[in-house]
Amino acid sequence: MNIEHIARIADLNARYAEAIDADRLEAWPDFFLDDGCYRITTAENVAQGLPLSMMYATSRAMLRDRVTALREANVYEGQRYRHVLGTPLIAAAGVGSLRARTGFMVARVMQTGETMLFATGCYEDRIALDGPDGARFAEKTVVLDSRQVDTLLAIPL
Amino acid sequence: MNIEHIARIADLNARYAEAIDADRLEAWPDFFLDDGCYRITTAENVAQGLPLSMMYATSRAMLRDRVTALREANVYEGQRYRHVLGTPLIAAAGVGSLRARTGFMVARVMQTGETMLFATGCYEDRIALDGPDGARFAEKTVVLDSRQVDTLLAIPL
Amino acid sequence: MNIEHIARIADLNARYAEAIDADRLEAWPDFFLDDGCYRITTAENVAQGLPLSMMYATSRAMLRDRVTALREANVYEGQRYRHVLGTPLIAAAGVGSLRARTGFMVARVMQTGETMLFATGCYEDRIALDGPDGARFAEKTVVLDSRQVDTLLAIPL
Repeated sequence: MNIEHIARIADLNARYAEAIDADRLEAWPDFFLDDGCYRITTAENVAQGLPLSMMYATSRAMLRDRVTALREANVYEGQRYRHVLGTPLIAAAGVGSLRARTGFMVARVMQTGETMLFATGCYEDRIALDGPDGARFAEKTVVLDSRQVDTLLAIPL
Repeated sequence: MNIEHIARIADLNARYAEAIDADRLEAWPDFFLDDGCYRITTAENVAQGLPLSMMYATSRAMLRDRVTALREANVYEGQRYRHVLGTPLIAAAGVGSLRARTGFMVARVMQTGETMLFATGCYEDRIALDGPDGARFAEKTVVLDSRQVDTLLAIPL
Repeated sequence: MNIEHIARIADLNARYAEAIDADRLEAWPDFFLDDGCYRITTAENVAQGLPLSMMYATSRAMLRDRVTALREANVYEGQRYRHVLGTPLIAAAGVGSLRARTGFMVARVMQTGETMLFATGCYEDRIALDGPDGARFAEKTVVLDSRQVDTLLAIPL
């Protein structure tokens, strides 16, 4: 167990979640490398070896495009998210990078005030530690516990 | 990133939440400085620059009065809370004090056993680190994600 | 406050929760000493000094039997859990062991995809730190906030 690694990943995760929850979506792509991958799938797909994804992006530019589309469509305006994350488990560490798994719960708060437990799951991340701008996600796979994916999966998880 | 700061704030937050969740409300004011401020507001109010608060106290004595009132009114007896908090983000540090933001979810458990996700939001805290009794809140602002505030906001958040 | 102790317990807790949430129940007994105790009770029972338990096991062998029974009965198949845990509070430390309290929320995700906040409460743990296989639970008492215990308490908490 490397306390500094865990603390750095917990800090990265907390800043990532806070950017989304505070509706600073324009900052969201900056948590990824230029060629970072972002994917949302389900535990069921993973268990069956299916490569299906609810969302799949292979660069920071694609993530920026998505944020622009969200802002223009305004589909997400009536809601906000609140993430609570677990302690990251460092699965493997290489030179300047590591893999981590972090459980999460996300609540969705509608503009009416209605609050619901929206999504639970696990982040499976590969993180580059020592870039010029600090730690960044090289890969983030969001593995949802539920097969029932809300069609209005507007805001990133 | 200062691991010791993060660990100290996470510990303070965990003790704060535990005092409330274990119904040791009499210990709650002790987490504040004598002239500590406690405020509950909403993200909507903050975004609009409105100074509205659901609750506002400017001293530890006011917090003690509130606990006394709660105990006498017994309004809170049929329920308990359970907080789960995120990793604190240290926003700025001065000499012997710092600012931190911490996301939270609170569940409410009624005496019947019914459990619901009651509140989500963010603590915006200014913390005095080096008092004779350890770290204390100089200011704690509870920013709720939902505009729909339960009228029975009995127990502190 | 001992940062290393807190980090070790947070790591143990995260691995414990992840084993359950990823349906690796066969690994669950390995988080306990050979003569480890596991008990599920409610805050109401604890407050009234009642020794009632929803579940009580006094050895790792009993926990293994339980997992075998669960796998054979297949009662748990239609659901999975997701734990999110708080920062552990180290209550007391002895030579090579310590006591910790950790708040938790558990969501239950049914095979249909339906997600609900299932249980909240507090782990009251005694942990042996320095065994040949690392930290292990000597005692884990799960104190549920709700008196209303689901009769289908299939998966361990």
